[in-house]
Amino acid sequence: MNTPFLLQKLKLLTLTIFTLLLSCSVQASHPNLVITQSDVLDMRKAITEQGRFASAYEKLKANVDLQMALPIEVPIPKDGGGGYTHERHKKNYQLMYDAGILFQLSQDKAYADYVRDMLLAYAQLYPTLDLHPARKVKSQNAGKLFWQSLNEAVWLVHTIQAYDLVYSALSAQDIISIETKLLKPVALFLSEGQPSTFNKVHNHGTWATAGVGMAGYVMNEPEWVDKALYDLQKSGKGGFLKQLDELFSPQGYYNEGPYYQRYALLPFVTFAKAIANNEPQRKIFQYRDGILLKAIDTTIQLSYDGLFFPINDAIKSKGIDTIELVHGVALAYNLTDAAGYLDIARQQDHIILSGDGLKVAQALDNGLAEPYAFRSVAFGDGSDGKQGALVIMRSQLAGDQALLFKPAAQGLDHGHFDKLTWQFYDQAKEIVSDYGAARFLNVEAKFGGRYLPENESYAKQTVAHNTVVVDETSHFDGDVEVGNQNAPVLNYFETSPLGTVASAKIDTAYQGVELKRTIALVNLAELEKTIVLDLFNVAASGEHQLDLPLHYQGQLIDTNFALSVSTNQLSALGTKNGYHHLWLKGRGLPKHRLAKVSWLNENGRFYTHTSLVNGQEEFLFTQLGANDPHFNLRNEQAFVRRVTNKNQHQFISVLEPHGEYNPGKEFTLEAESQLTELGYSQQGNVMLVDITIAGVSYLIAINQAPEASIKQDFQYQDQSFSANGRLAVFALNDH
Amino acid sequence: MNTPFLLQKLKLLTLTIFTLLLSCSVQASHPNLVITQSDVLDMRKAITEQGRFASAYEKLKANVDLQMALPIEVPIPKDGGGGYTHERHKKNYQLMYDAGILFQLSQDKAYADYVRDMLLAYAQLYPTLDLHPARKVKSQNAGKLFWQSLNEAVWLVHTIQAYDLVYSALSAQDIISIETKLLKPVALFLSEGQPSTFNKVHNHGTWATAGVGMAGYVMNEPEWVDKALYDLQKSGKGGFLKQLDELFSPQGYYNEGPYYQRYALLPFVTFAKAIANNEPQRKIFQYRDGILLKAIDTTIQLSYDGLFFPINDAIKSKGIDTIELVHGVALAYNLTDAAGYLDIARQQDHIILSGDGLKVAQALDNGLAEPYAFRSVAFGDGSDGKQGALVIMRSQLAGDQALLFKPAAQGLDHGHFDKLTWQFYDQAKEIVSDYGAARFLNVEAKFGGRYLPENESYAKQTVAHNTVVVDETSHFDGDVEVGNQNAPVLNYFETSPLGTVASAKIDTAYQGVELKRTIALVNLAELEKTIVLDLFNVAASGEHQLDLPLHYQGQLIDTNFALSVSTNQLSALGTKNGYHHLWLKGRGLPKHRLAKVSWLNENGRFYTHTSLVNGQEEFLFTQLGANDPHFNLRNEQAFVRRVTNKNQHQFISVLEPHGEYNPGKEFTLEAESQLTELGYSQQGNVMLVDITIAGVSYLIAINQAPEASIKQDFQYQDQSFSANGRLAVFALNDH
Repeated sequence: MNTPFLLQKLKLLTLTIFTLLLSCSVQASHPNLVITQSDVLDMRKAITEQGRFASAYEKLKANVDLQMALPIEVPIPKDGGGGYTHERHKKNYQLMYDAGILFQLSQDKAYADYVRDMLLAYAQLYPTLDLHPARKVKSQNAGKLFWQSLNEAVWLVHTIQAYDLVYSALSAQDIISIETKLLKPVALFLSEGQPSTFNKVHNHGTWATAGVGMAGYVMNEPEWVDKALYDLQKSGKGGFLKQLDELFSPQGYYNEGPYYQRYALLPFVTFAKAIANNEPQRKIFQYRDGILLKAIDTTIQLSYDGLFFPINDAIKSKGIDTIELVHGVALAYNLTDAAGYLDIARQQDHIILSGDGLKVAQALDNGLAEPYAFRSVAFGDGSDGKQGALVIMRSQLAGDQALLFKPAAQGLDHGHFDKLTWQFYDQAKEIVSDYGAARFLNVEAKFGGRYLPENESYAKQTVAHNTVVVDETSHFDGDVEVGNQNAPVLNYFETSPLGTVASAKIDTAYQGVELKRTIALVNLAELEKTIVLDLFNVAASGEHQLDLPLHYQGQLIDTNFALSVSTNQLSALGTKNGYHHLWLKGRGLPKHRLAKVSWLNENGRFYTHTSLVNGQEEFLFTQLGANDPHFNLRNEQAFVRRVTNKNQHQFISVLEPHGEYNPGKEFTLEAESQLTELGYSQQGNVMLVDITIAGVSYLIAINQAPEASIKQDFQYQDQSFSANGRLAVFALNDH
Repeated sequence: MNTPFLLQKLKLLTLTIFTLLLSCSVQASHPNLVITQSDVLDMRKAITEQGRFASAYEKLKANVDLQMALPIEVPIPKDGGGGYTHERHKKNYQLMYDAGILFQLSQDKAYADYVRDMLLAYAQLYPTLDLHPARKVKSQNAGKLFWQSLNEAVWLVHTIQAYDLVYSALSAQDIISIETKLLKPVALFLSEGQPSTFNKVHNHGTWATAGVGMAGYVMNEPEWVDKALYDLQKSGKGGFLKQLDELFSPQGYYNEGPYYQRYALLPFVTFAKAIANNEPQRKIFQYRDGILLKAIDTTIQLSYDGLFFPINDAIKSKGIDTIELVHGVALAYNLTDAAGYLDIARQQDHIILSGDGLKVAQALDNGLAEPYAFRSVAFGDGSDGKQGALVIMRSQLAGDQALLFKPAAQGLDHGHFDKLTWQFYDQAKEIVSDYGAARFLNVEAKFGGRYLPENESYAKQTVAHNTVVVDETSHFDGDVEVGNQNAPVLNYFETSPLGTVASAKIDTAYQGVELKRTIALVNLAELEKTIVLDLFNVAASGEHQLDLPLHYQGQLIDTNFALSVSTNQLSALGTKNGYHHLWLKGRGLPKHRLAKVSWLNENGRFYTHTSLVNGQEEFLFTQLGANDPHFNLRNEQAFVRRVTNKNQHQFISVLEPHGEYNPGKEFTLEAESQLTELGYSQQGNVMLVDITIAGVSYLIAINQAPEASIKQDFQYQDQSFSANGRLAVFALNDH
């Protein structure tokens, strides 16, 4: 026998052995990751019947058919985020995934062939690749197909599922090529090749462990599954389970905030589903008292009018219809049968072609949806739930209102220096707002579509938020590491039909300064109005300048005090820490007890912010946009209340929505604030705010006692009152 | 017989005579103004059947019932516009009108009694009144119930109808009181009492003549009808018919623009309907070739996405759902049976309880609505249609786009100095915008809710618009009288599937300067794109500074030339004529042939404005808000192209909508302009623009010949072309 013949024999033998090995694989059946064979049978039936599922199938099919008519493109990696090769490779994994689903549902081999051909093209390309040319210098997480390995992990999560879906249609030869040249090398690159990312308890790690773990199930590498679950050393110090332990608080709040929470959700949901299908004995959905379901539900709770509250580095247009949460809600409904999730699914208007998706589609077809209940809630932050909290207050008394109060932890690199800040929403609009992230995602002309320099210089800075800035310096002096180690303390939170109140403090944002804020969203039932009380106390060991900005959305209508306005020339308010981005438009020093600022928002509602002043608070009116040579910032409005040389100050204010401006119908109602009196006093542990609004006088009592349950009795203007719980509201005219 | 007895006898006799007079009145039947007895019979039937009409009836009834449960309030006049007594008297006439309708439909006398009681209260108040205390000093049109007689006329138009509707339920005694103490005095006050207003060919005159004329029909004073139609002297130089002759162009365009057109419409529609019902022989709806119907239809055509184009002193939220146009559309449908009006009625979502309203409701119930056809059209301005024109261009090729080009006449006191300006709309948003009016209607804190000082100092000024400013001075030097006497000339207008083009000029806006502008909305069918061509030629006898501003809505994304930006300090661009309200943010002098400015709007679409420059045009980037001590102005963005010391200049530019920014779904498409070449040349009468966009080269020819029909042959790059009509578009790659 000559050598070529021997070689050929050997090759054949290898193939045979490999095929034998395949046939005795643990995972004998495909598909069996997120979608199982049993799901497939149900789904095949559903597409023959009218309904949302069949419609979604037809829509996806039409879309993929169009794409499949074009030549397969697997370009040599070149561009960073937003560039052609980047977007193409992203598109490819989605296409492979979708075609894989269509193959299973239609049983038309054309779809499997398409996936196979693309996988083979990748199998030819991948072994030739070095690290991506557009990677960041000295980066530890460069990819090969993409500039960062995060995208590569996302690619694997999708591609391994596509592979699993078409596996049954592949030849043994193709299986060898695809696994040995592509899928196994990618999985090894993302695990052994980047231990620091893979072992990291961070959402980048979750994508990597999800991809590698699912690859382990599909390609019969149980070792990989173990490493995905417990880290490369199987120590349990990293890996998927540790991520479930640490990345969410006990209530399911994700440290970085909702914008990143929904992003982080997908690999959790995906891998967990694969684990449940492959190793049900792990009871992954019961893990940590059902943390995954809590994480999904919390993500929904962290939205208003369909959009996520934009805290930290958040782009404001992200909302509950994001694909990650579509998967999450489908899973949550399948796990719980809670009809509220169908309400969310209806708003998402996106049926996914999976077993969970089918169940949602059929329930919606049968009209089972019920309103999802948004709650007032304090989500404890940090893995122990004790690193401060993110507080949401809601009221339906006068329309759909929400208030976010943020005595939350720093939230890692994407966190902002905004301890104790707040935001307010009314009638589906931002009223008291947060800038969010300074970024035009994927817009090349805007700093390559990455976070803009102004994200650091403005959006993260304290002055960009609605909280106290001491001496024009940001919290923790702008140091993330210090921030990550020092969370605020939530003193209490309570919600009742009277309203919702929360109080929190932090003494580490500035050395020698304690910031304590109490915020209440109070229902004034007699007036069918809801107001916001804001009591911010600053106590310091030395004298400081204290600034409390309020960023409002709308057109300034009036102030009840004189303003000195810069009419011919504008200058920046300061020189650093975000102050250099604010033009100072005008200033005023209100002498009266009540200082009012009114604005009109785009919905035609008026908002008046009334402060209780004693002639010391100066009001500085600003517009964003100074030191912005590339027009990167939105030109938003704020006013900053300032006191100087103070070691103690209490900022006391009320926000009052009122009236309606309707030039279309030519009427204007209650354009002026109806608040005529505001007073503050304290009796022992009880803070007392008396307020007269639209002729009705109220006494609002907030009980600061260490033990909330203790009943508090007190006198006020010769009347006796008794309050149970944190918040009490008395309509004085009723007495 | 003693004297008291005699007096009593006399009183009784008077009453008897009066009653006899009443019974032989010309208008023997009531109601017979807008609503006739025959209408009433049909309407009574309709409210017993399910449908839109019955729903509207139930809704109105519920609303009026609530109001009727409260005590009648007829306060002594005190407040100006927006104040309590002003709003209360407005509310009262609406209430009386509504209750009158409800009486006719329900035949429940409680509604008639309510109207009667309120009328009697007014009859008691009115004789005691002098001119309104809040009237303008030296005003010739003060009212008694209201600060201006315009409101009083509107009051009469409604109240006389209410009276007519309840007439049959009134006692003779009440009729005498109401007519002699209230309605006749009001009618006399508004006619003989204010001849200058009554005789004026102006919308204030229309309200007065409508009120007085209808009062004449109801109270049997045919003389009043004649005076209403022909003026107090019955000369025909004023009065309702003269108003129909002069206030609308032959196509039905109202000189002041759509915001005032819809307002003016109601008395026209109302009085005309009353004339038709009382004196059908006058053929009022055929008057002047059916001018009233044309006026209604034109009002609809002057809208985009439901809102009126905001030219002149317009508040932007006014649209086709305005009550005036609800009446107009109902009449138009009744007169024409054109199903397109039902489309508008459906969008208005407001059924009026009248004969016309019933016909609309039943047609909508029967599903007869068909899409209303919005057209590209040039509305000739002025009573002869030759005082310039208002041009609307529309395209559906790439979404719903509209362009307004304004070589229209000044438009009286509410007109802006904006000759040849333009506006552009896409995807239901303003892209190239007009400030509209500077006013917060009825918001007391904003200059009493009246037009703000900034309406004169900015909104009316030329620099607030998208047209050439010579030497920083507004058109006609800001003199309305001069403006009213000098309209632009529309050279031509043409629309075809290729697009729409119009050209116009004016040589009276500035002495010794001719402004000529040609604008085309061009469909590039191969690319499914629509672009705007803008060719603005200025020729002057001396040297001038020429500024061409462009006010854009969105965030500046990029320029392809360097900008020098004021980062630490801003100054106003100028000292007067609106320039003093613009902060100068940055400036650049593009050297390349193509100067590009790109912005991103709130819908997530990009717009690039490309100018063909030769190194002479400086670009000044501005933000509105300087010299605005009361924060009255919106802080909008613009850039101004400037050349200096020029006696001739041609501004050549293209506006290109492109791409999509979708951070929610995390993709960005075509963020950069695809226009790579732009050239301009002229061959005889033909202007040639060659343009390469997305790799496709086009030659766009605009034929300037005096006779449009003449075929033009020309050579371009060794190819022969032949163009018929004004606009020709050749895809060069096809040749």
